[in-house]
Amino acid sequence: MKHALDFYLKQRRKIVALNYVGFVISWDMETDAAEQSITADSEQVAVVSEMSYRLLTDPEFENAVSVLYENRSSLDEVLKHEIEDAYKRVRDTKKIPQDEYTAYSELTSKAYPVYVKAKTENNFELFRPYLEKIVEFCRKQTKWLETDELKGYDVLLDQYEPHYTQAKYDAFFNALRKRLVPFVKEVTAKPAAVPDWAKQNFPADKQREFCEYLRDVMLFDKTRGIMKQSEHPFTSGFGTDDVRITNHYYENKFDSSIFSCIHETGHALYEQQCDKSLNGTLSGGGASLGLHESQSRFYENIVGRCRAFWSVHFTKLKSIFEEQLKDVTLDEFLAYINTAERSFIRTEADELTYPLHVMLRYEIEQKIIKGELEVKDLPAYWNDKFKEYFGITPLNDAVGVLQDVHWAYGNFGYFPTYALGSAIASQLYHYMNKDFDVEQSLKEGTTAKINEWLKERVHKYGSSKYPDEILRLATGEDFNPDYYIDYLINKYAKV
Amino acid sequence: MKHALDFYLKQRRKIVALNYVGFVISWDMETDAAEQSITADSEQVAVVSEMSYRLLTDPEFENAVSVLYENRSSLDEVLKHEIEDAYKRVRDTKKIPQDEYTAYSELTSKAYPVYVKAKTENNFELFRPYLEKIVEFCRKQTKWLETDELKGYDVLLDQYEPHYTQAKYDAFFNALRKRLVPFVKEVTAKPAAVPDWAKQNFPADKQREFCEYLRDVMLFDKTRGIMKQSEHPFTSGFGTDDVRITNHYYENKFDSSIFSCIHETGHALYEQQCDKSLNGTLSGGGASLGLHESQSRFYENIVGRCRAFWSVHFTKLKSIFEEQLKDVTLDEFLAYINTAERSFIRTEADELTYPLHVMLRYEIEQKIIKGELEVKDLPAYWNDKFKEYFGITPLNDAVGVLQDVHWAYGNFGYFPTYALGSAIASQLYHYMNKDFDVEQSLKEGTTAKINEWLKERVHKYGSSKYPDEILRLATGEDFNPDYYIDYLINKYAKV
Repeated sequence: MKHALDFYLKQRRKIVALNYVGFVISWDMETDAAEQSITADSEQVAVVSEMSYRLLTDPEFENAVSVLYENRSSLDEVLKHEIEDAYKRVRDTKKIPQDEYTAYSELTSKAYPVYVKAKTENNFELFRPYLEKIVEFCRKQTKWLETDELKGYDVLLDQYEPHYTQAKYDAFFNALRKRLVPFVKEVTAKPAAVPDWAKQNFPADKQREFCEYLRDVMLFDKTRGIMKQSEHPFTSGFGTDDVRITNHYYENKFDSSIFSCIHETGHALYEQQCDKSLNGTLSGGGASLGLHESQSRFYENIVGRCRAFWSVHFTKLKSIFEEQLKDVTLDEFLAYINTAERSFIRTEADELTYPLHVMLRYEIEQKIIKGELEVKDLPAYWNDKFKEYFGITPLNDAVGVLQDVHWAYGNFGYFPTYALGSAIASQLYHYMNKDFDVEQSLKEGTTAKINEWLKERVHKYGSSKYPDEILRLATGEDFNPDYYIDYLINKYAKV
Repeated sequence: MKHALDFYLKQRRKIVALNYVGFVISWDMETDAAEQSITADSEQVAVVSEMSYRLLTDPEFENAVSVLYENRSSLDEVLKHEIEDAYKRVRDTKKIPQDEYTAYSELTSKAYPVYVKAKTENNFELFRPYLEKIVEFCRKQTKWLETDELKGYDVLLDQYEPHYTQAKYDAFFNALRKRLVPFVKEVTAKPAAVPDWAKQNFPADKQREFCEYLRDVMLFDKTRGIMKQSEHPFTSGFGTDDVRITNHYYENKFDSSIFSCIHETGHALYEQQCDKSLNGTLSGGGASLGLHESQSRFYENIVGRCRAFWSVHFTKLKSIFEEQLKDVTLDEFLAYINTAERSFIRTEADELTYPLHVMLRYEIEQKIIKGELEVKDLPAYWNDKFKEYFGITPLNDAVGVLQDVHWAYGNFGYFPTYALGSAIASQLYHYMNKDFDVEQSLKEGTTAKINEWLKERVHKYGSSKYPDEILRLATGEDFNPDYYIDYLINKYAKV
């Protein structure tokens, strides 16, 4: 046991260091690295990944994890959770036949460029054979990895959001289908028009200036992180003291950078507010994709689109865009940033219609993994269902079934976490309001009170507990989608 | 032999990948990483360095290197050189007692902050005990590492510039002392004044714009590298396809960014123009510090400060700084960028006085390592010699003996390469002019012809040959300092 623990800690030190290496390299590739250097450096990235993989599959490491797992009752809470997780990962890795895994890695790396081409050329048939093989692997994967608790699609779901199975998601999406679909159809019956003032030119450097201001409002610690530009906004963190976000500035769509900034800073606060003692372990960072998304969406939608927030900060925005916003009132601005409309693209959808996009993908994935739907029938099925939920039919597959990259990567089970995030955010909001008036607190000028509550209830745990445990600790209740649907209906009934 | 080669190549792949990792991490720390994250991440850097060190000191690797070294006659030229170099490094590493090495690493890491404090407070005595211990180690090091060919200070010199020993440097610096010291005193007798127009404000973004233009003039391949901002300008490269430079923009000293840009782009061209077949080996990059510096200084001084260059590009500079330069003539500009004056700080010295600063340090290091000068006597000795060579006495130790960081890192033997670079540049210039009229070629608008010549004679070899071999191949002659002194005297006699 002593020997196993020593070995585990020694090996973990290296694993953590290579995680840091991966973090810096991807940051570099996403932001700085020149076109040709990315190709040139990819061989180095492959060697480093191989080193990481060897550390994790080293038989001595596996053995140490097993010994610690058997004796886990004697470990402290954090390490116990970490070992349980490592044990599961080691066990799962061994269940996948090595040759199948290698073939699959090759398949997905070949599938990606084909997917890009298929989307560009609006040609699903080009991508179809690749997607069929990917689906075949995912179906087999559910067999290899199944346990007494997890079978079928649940196996895949659990990889992205531990303990969130079809039982939970079905309840969630059934409620959405029943209560939200008719409501959305009603609210979005009349097409929304972008007001003329929002179509003006908003210079990038002015947008950047306002985003710097927003990061201060949200109390992002600038000595422990930075903000930079990249093609698509993202957050990336290593421990509590190196948390980075990016943004993108569209001069003809100024609100995009504002809400990306608030969204990514929400992710960043989760990372910065983890307990510092988790640095250097494998228990830092967010507990899951869904819980992480709950934080970014809490700030982006619940905080960032509410009247109280803008009643304080709209003056600042107007002072930066003096010319462009001189005739715009707070009411007009709020109406604009809370517009709901029917649209084809998930990533561009508004707060209200967003979860329906995810619901569609969940339903499709479930049928595909169960074998009730085949890849060749996907485009037609997608379009039918889209019409049913949104009342409109995608113009083509590029803005339909081909719009998202996830399946090309083999990420079945990932999508539902996007909607889960918003739903969890609403549940947290409900309970936060029991402790203090959330909107009222925003009038103090910063998100200090909200940050503090989330830190104590969610952030501080890092990934040292499962996301469902953290939610129960934070709210005293299991996941309950009603808060979300109530929130949306209540908000958009007013708008 | 077959086994040894396979193992060597396998291990080299990992070493190269960790070199890439080191390259990206330092780039990140120098440019992006926030204040506190640097501290937080230093543990990870230590673990990665440890991994690198283990790869290099792995007994199986040492063994493979030995076997290959014994059979080196059967290897191709490039690999043969690489193995000779690796063999020497492995042999040297083993000659230093492990405990001494560890103690020394600790010493220098403690010495650095003390040095910074001592410089800030102008207090040499604070730094003295650390420097004494560093010198003690360096003196011992010359004993541990001495060979039949290399003894004393030569051991240290060879680490930074292989095959450049005191015999060569003495000839160089003696010539400088004899011919250049009296000339410099004469030329700099009258203090130089900065003209009023150069004291105006030159906005950073305009400076950046001109530097982008300069990189195009020098044909830096922007798809295989980038330029960014950092505290101090530097170049950093990994292979031929990922070469990065930084710059710093002082709004009240606009020429600083111009010459830093030309200097760093000179370094960058060396890296970009190596033979591509050397990528992925340990034989890429520059052959030595001195040879690298010869390239940056060739472009910065010989190209960047000459009339022909500015007769083409001054119009562009004037168009960017229309207001600031409207009354400035080409002659006035050339006089300004070629001013020579007596000053205390090496890094800020002009082209003419620069080598004397290096000469002083060489002389001091030589005496210290020989034991003819002790650390306690350094400040007084420095000031006396400075007065002798420059005709002025440093105001205090902060701008005297404490100005450079190198000794705090234990880098004895490094300084002379700085002056060597300029001298080699002049030797190359002499021979380049035999092939074509260098100044005339600049009138074509780019440095294409110069780049091509340097690529064929210097760059393409990477570090697959020793620097003295490359110089002989390029010029048909061994290192000869006369070209440099002639160049300087000839140029500044006219100015």
